Amino acid sequence: MVSDLFWPGDDRAGDHLTPAAFLEAIVDVEEAWLAVLGVEGATLVADIDALWGRELESGGNPVITVVAGLREALATGQPEAARWLHRGLTSQDVVDSALMTMARDAIADVVTEQRRLVRRLADLAREHRDTPMVARTLTQHAVPTTMGLKVATWLSGVLDAWDDLTRLTFPVQAGGAAGTQAAVVELGRDPAAARAGLATALGLADAVPWHTARRPVTRIADALVACTDAWGRIAADVLTLSRPEIGELAEGVGGGSSTMPHKANPVLSTLIRRAALTTPQLAATLHLAAAEQVAERADGAWHVEWDTLRLLLRRTLTAAGQAADLADELRVHPDRMAATLAGAREDVRAEQRAMAELAGREPAGDYLGAAGDLVDAVLTRARIQLEEST
Amino acid sequence: MVSDLFWPGDDRAGDHLTPAAFLEAIVDVEEAWLAVLGVEGATLVADIDALWGRELESGGNPVITVVAGLREALATGQPEAARWLHRGLTSQDVVDSALMTMARDAIADVVTEQRRLVRRLADLAREHRDTPMVARTLTQHAVPTTMGLKVATWLSGVLDAWDDLTRLTFPVQAGGAAGTQAAVVELGRDPAAARAGLATALGLADAVPWHTARRPVTRIADALVACTDAWGRIAADVLTLSRPEIGELAEGVGGGSSTMPHKANPVLSTLIRRAALTTPQLAATLHLAAAEQVAERADGAWHVEWDTLRLLLRRTLTAAGQAADLADELRVHPDRMAATLAGAREDVRAEQRAMAELAGREPAGDYLGAAGDLVDAVLTRARIQLEEST
Amino acid sequence: MVSDLFWPGDDRAGDHLTPAAFLEAIVDVEEAWLAVLGVEGATLVADIDALWGRELESGGNPVITVVAGLREALATGQPEAARWLHRGLTSQDVVDSALMTMARDAIADVVTEQRRLVRRLADLAREHRDTPMVARTLTQHAVPTTMGLKVATWLSGVLDAWDDLTRLTFPVQAGGAAGTQAAVVELGRDPAAARAGLATALGLADAVPWHTARRPVTRIADALVACTDAWGRIAADVLTLSRPEIGELAEGVGGGSSTMPHKANPVLSTLIRRAALTTPQLAATLHLAAAEQVAERADGAWHVEWDTLRLLLRRTLTAAGQAADLADELRVHPDRMAATLAGAREDVRAEQRAMAELAGREPAGDYLGAAGDLVDAVLTRARIQLEEST
Amino acid sequence: MVSDLFWPGDDRAGDHLTPAAFLEAIVDVEEAWLAVLGVEGATLVADIDALWGRELESGGNPVITVVAGLREALATGQPEAARWLHRGLTSQDVVDSALMTMARDAIADVVTEQRRLVRRLADLAREHRDTPMVARTLTQHAVPTTMGLKVATWLSGVLDAWDDLTRLTFPVQAGGAAGTQAAVVELGRDPAAARAGLATALGLADAVPWHTARRPVTRIADALVACTDAWGRIAADVLTLSRPEIGELAEGVGGGSSTMPHKANPVLSTLIRRAALTTPQLAATLHLAAAEQVAERADGAWHVEWDTLRLLLRRTLTAAGQAADLADELRVHPDRMAATLAGAREDVRAEQRAMAELAGREPAGDYLGAAGDLVDAVLTRARIQLEEST
Repeated sequence: MVSDLFWPGDDRAGDHLTPAAFLEAIVDVEEAWLAVLGVEGATLVADIDALWGRELESGGNPVITVVAGLREALATGQPEAARWLHRGLTSQDVVDSALMTMARDAIADVVTEQRRLVRRLADLAREHRDTPMVARTLTQHAVPTTMGLKVATWLSGVLDAWDDLTRLTFPVQAGGAAGTQAAVVELGRDPAAARAGLATALGLADAVPWHTARRPVTRIADALVACTDAWGRIAADVLTLSRPEIGELAEGVGGGSSTMPHKANPVLSTLIRRAALTTPQLAATLHLAAAEQVAERADGAWHVEWDTLRLLLRRTLTAAGQAADLADELRVHPDRMAATLAGAREDVRAEQRAMAELAGREPAGDYLGAAGDLVDAVLTRARIQLEEST
Repeated sequence: MVSDLFWPGDDRAGDHLTPAAFLEAIVDVEEAWLAVLGVEGATLVADIDALWGRELESGGNPVITVVAGLREALATGQPEAARWLHRGLTSQDVVDSALMTMARDAIADVVTEQRRLVRRLADLAREHRDTPMVARTLTQHAVPTTMGLKVATWLSGVLDAWDDLTRLTFPVQAGGAAGTQAAVVELGRDPAAARAGLATALGLADAVPWHTARRPVTRIADALVACTDAWGRIAADVLTLSRPEIGELAEGVGGGSSTMPHKANPVLSTLIRRAALTTPQLAATLHLAAAEQVAERADGAWHVEWDTLRLLLRRTLTAAGQAADLADELRVHPDRMAATLAGAREDVRAEQRAMAELAGREPAGDYLGAAGDLVDAVLTRARIQLEEST
Repeated sequence: MVSDLFWPGDDRAGDHLTPAAFLEAIVDVEEAWLAVLGVEGATLVADIDALWGRELESGGNPVITVVAGLREALATGQPEAARWLHRGLTSQDVVDSALMTMARDAIADVVTEQRRLVRRLADLAREHRDTPMVARTLTQHAVPTTMGLKVATWLSGVLDAWDDLTRLTFPVQAGGAAGTQAAVVELGRDPAAARAGLATALGLADAVPWHTARRPVTRIADALVACTDAWGRIAADVLTLSRPEIGELAEGVGGGSSTMPHKANPVLSTLIRRAALTTPQLAATLHLAAAEQVAERADGAWHVEWDTLRLLLRRTLTAAGQAADLADELRVHPDRMAATLAGAREDVRAEQRAMAELAGREPAGDYLGAAGDLVDAVLTRARIQLEEST
Repeated sequence: MVSDLFWPGDDRAGDHLTPAAFLEAIVDVEEAWLAVLGVEGATLVADIDALWGRELESGGNPVITVVAGLREALATGQPEAARWLHRGLTSQDVVDSALMTMARDAIADVVTEQRRLVRRLADLAREHRDTPMVARTLTQHAVPTTMGLKVATWLSGVLDAWDDLTRLTFPVQAGGAAGTQAAVVELGRDPAAARAGLATALGLADAVPWHTARRPVTRIADALVACTDAWGRIAADVLTLSRPEIGELAEGVGGGSSTMPHKANPVLSTLIRRAALTTPQLAATLHLAAAEQVAERADGAWHVEWDTLRLLLRRTLTAAGQAADLADELRVHPDRMAATLAGAREDVRAEQRAMAELAGREPAGDYLGAAGDLVDAVLTRARIQLEEST
């Protein structure tokens, strides 16, 4: 799969949420559950290639086919495991738990990139704390600001998004056919212990069954979109300020053109912006799916989640690396900033003159207000958040 | 405005986020800011009717027109207030702060309804903790469950949504033209004190300027959608189980028909479901607006927020009341539940027979597993959350 | 209602789809239907103010309350009309037919603005057919183009959107309680004639009942979004090219600032862009509502449509006028275009040099290719479309 | 790629819009363009595996890498082809034209399934033209209707969607770097002939460059969503009426459960419904991308399209086959319909009694109104549309 063709950069998401990873996560859940049931040491192997040609549609979800395949494989050498495999679970337990482990792992990588981005933005804000530039509102020159404050505003958004990522929990699902855990009780096991045991084995949080209460999924979605929002907002500034007529910022390595030899396109910003234009609608789909839950298992609204979450996680992870790279390699041109500001001097001091007149005194030498203090406040927040996250 | 015509039930949202409320909130911000600047006792009056015929479009936002109107009105009797009005602020400071006060107030009412709903669902779950009924997965009979566990699952979703509401903060906006607070500094005021003073006066949280870092807005959106998701999920069950062929639930007061005298329609559920189908896309719009922020004030992406937030808040508040009423008046028919279960007996015990055989023993008398314990766990959570919220 | 506060410019949509207009449209349908039933000359009057305090929620739609009010009002003076009012119809017949008449009228105004826009864009394309400027791809200078071709591309998009508007049909709804027209047959009327009669009276298209087949609604939505897409795309160019560092375009009348006296903001473009960021999600909501239709009347998915369609129509109509005004007043600065092009000369001729070398000849004097011919082709299309539409 | 794991049934979409298909379509465009330039007989081969490890991100789109690879491969054996490869085109020409050929082919398969579905629905409507059943509005029993009219309503929606599919055009893209066709003119070719030649070779429609006027893409999106809307609406009825308490419809082959041996789940309906919950937001994304076009190539909004269109086309094609299979195998139970109707007799005749009283006569024997005629009208439309499409 060269998914990069349709979504250049997608290979940054590596093996997260590939079909093979999903299969492996499913197998991990089944294996951990066997241990919960007391069947230790079973070795489950499922081959992604062996699913080729297997009929996955008729069950409506992949677990039915995979469990059948695993049982066949276990039948000869590990009959005890074959007998107990999946007993007490329902397909949704396995799919949900598998998705949660995959989401957790993908988000851990997002957080790693987020930390890299925060460090780099903090450096940039510190370095350019006092680099003056023109502020632009509604596309027009407004008043002076600093590159440091611009970056601090980017950083605020990134820290907000990071906050939400760190608050996420990834609950286990182990409710059985309809969330009552009846089968595991019938098998003579303690239901609370079974649930907790599976959670521990998979590194998930213990939780009462949430088959049709999907906030765990939509919280992930909301937090991921908050990330691409924050990065898209940075990309928008880079795309604007790297226009040749402005030239105050530039990507470190521009992208080439298939026909124009001179081009150096802001490719990372372009691709981040692309992601940010798609993730809100993916999250909306997951919210709709949450609202359309019904009875003890939804007739379609559950099935919506798997590929939507895959897209959301891979696109966010891809954009995470692109955003961190963008910040790493960003070139700032204080000379161009100064030149723009000088050219706009009369206009961007108009408000100041009005204020000074109102205050009954001469305009001060600069007009940067509390910019430096505001940068410092955000840097302090970043420092604390970085320390707490280690 | 009889907005009920297009959105029946909308009057439940009362005066929240009406044009008059927006105007009043704008005036409140300006008045509080005058006090921050040291102009005490000014009395600002803006008349919504006086805005009729006023040109609101050309400024792109309502503050420009309102400030001009206020200045005119103050000019004769309160010249000092006229002189200092709005000095040090920018339109976005006023709009954002006004929206935050309106959102805070509307969400306080959502929380009140949420508490009513939680209490009622807790009562229902307790009352029907052991009322058996059939669980339905993918529309078909699955295994037995209890009405108590069904309600507990509803309650879990509502508690999750409530959690997110209580975590919201409503930050003040007071950055001046480009977020540097330059004007307030030029006016000789302490910028941090000015910001904190405005926050205190308005009952908002102090915050560094967030003109183009919009997570405060999208967090509100995400939390509201989580509410309608949770209520929509309840409505879906009521709509399904109040079908005449099932008859296990019924709305307390059904809605009539314009032509069929016998009809008793599940109107509250219908209208809640309606809301839940629209809010995810409104939240997506706010996320897109967040991602499209650029420079120091966005050229359109900011303007998107006001009406979108209005719709989201009013629809959620309307649905909040409808959901609480739905739960209040819900009729449960244990006899019909028992009849369904009896009719499906062979099928819904199929899994149990398989499990009992596997365990090498006779099937137990019931097949409700840990249902009761799970209900109790959710009830404990509800009790704690209710206690903490008072 | 000063809805401009939340959506500046909204008053451009005038009385279209206001609550009073909805009420009037409902009354018109009922009046026309009385005539279909043979009750001529009835005078139905409904007062929007009289609905204040009336309970609209419990019926789930406004018709039930309105019909009850009309019957009361008719009871004394026009008993025959009171007796036959609404007989043979269901609420959805009235709401759907009323919405279709309102949509038709609003779209007629959109088309009027569209025609104004097409004329002005055609003039601009003709005037600047040969005005050279730099083309920009991925924000960077690419090769030369002309302002004429840029405008022609805008125009292509507008003509595409106009095409879709002209193909819309607005079907009557008159299926009775469940789409069988049973009541009208029971009343001894010819069902096909009744339907056709209502269609003719309301100026709608005759149609078999489409209570749960909602393509008529989603086609309107798709066509409206195509309009805001086309205008948003123009606004994006104006917002970019009117940046002070570029200065190749400018809005005729810029918007002011509440604090910065020098500002001239591209307000029309900003507000158009705002609309374009919201309409796709509104259309998505209408499509979801179409997909969620079920049985003979949907339990929520129908109710979603009314306010969503209202928002979509009013926002599109508002943006229509803004787009036409934007084009009317647009200022083009060929001198700035020439200066940019001169400054970028080496770069933007790089491709040409490569092509000339490949062709084994000297580079031609210009590098505008077929730009003029392409402008002419689009102008011809515009001329034909304008002629056909009159 | 076993994409079925995340989207069961996805293999129904076969090789449409796979990475390999995209690569092949790109190569086809380049090959056809070589012929347009007069380089006949070149054999271009690109190996999807060879792209593994190739860096696709830095160009922002796949064409840059693919063209480089093709040039290398041609360098030794076919130097003339290597020299002229891609000359006069830009990446967007190739990507857009390639997407249009892929969309056209995928939609041809959608139409094939649509025709199968229309035939089957027509048969069902004819067969059950007079099979009485209860109509349900807002979940409750309303009045009698027929299974024939229900199916005819489904069919109306499907015919509407089919109409839109047949109106689609798939334009070629060949504007060069910025849509002026300057390079092809510099190379001494006739630009109109070159464009038309490429269109003919690829089986696409000739068109002026539409690099930033994206209605061709959004029209495809709108038409595809109309399809899933129509099928989702059918699925909703099957899901409702195959509930065991209703039992009036059933899927031919139910899906199994991983733990409950008795289950026969309506899997096709579930999976169709799943698709219908996701496509509207994908189309919204494409509309947003259209609205965010700017200058001569958009900085992100173009890049959004590829994967979004891939998802939309594959999901629609998958659902197309599922919908046709669902109809093919649908089981109708007139006995259960009759029983429901008998049980609801008093209620569902309430309207009739009121009408008869109003008309001053005894209620007629049935209360099916024009149901039969309405079925016939839709069948006539289906027949004409089937005939015209062959």
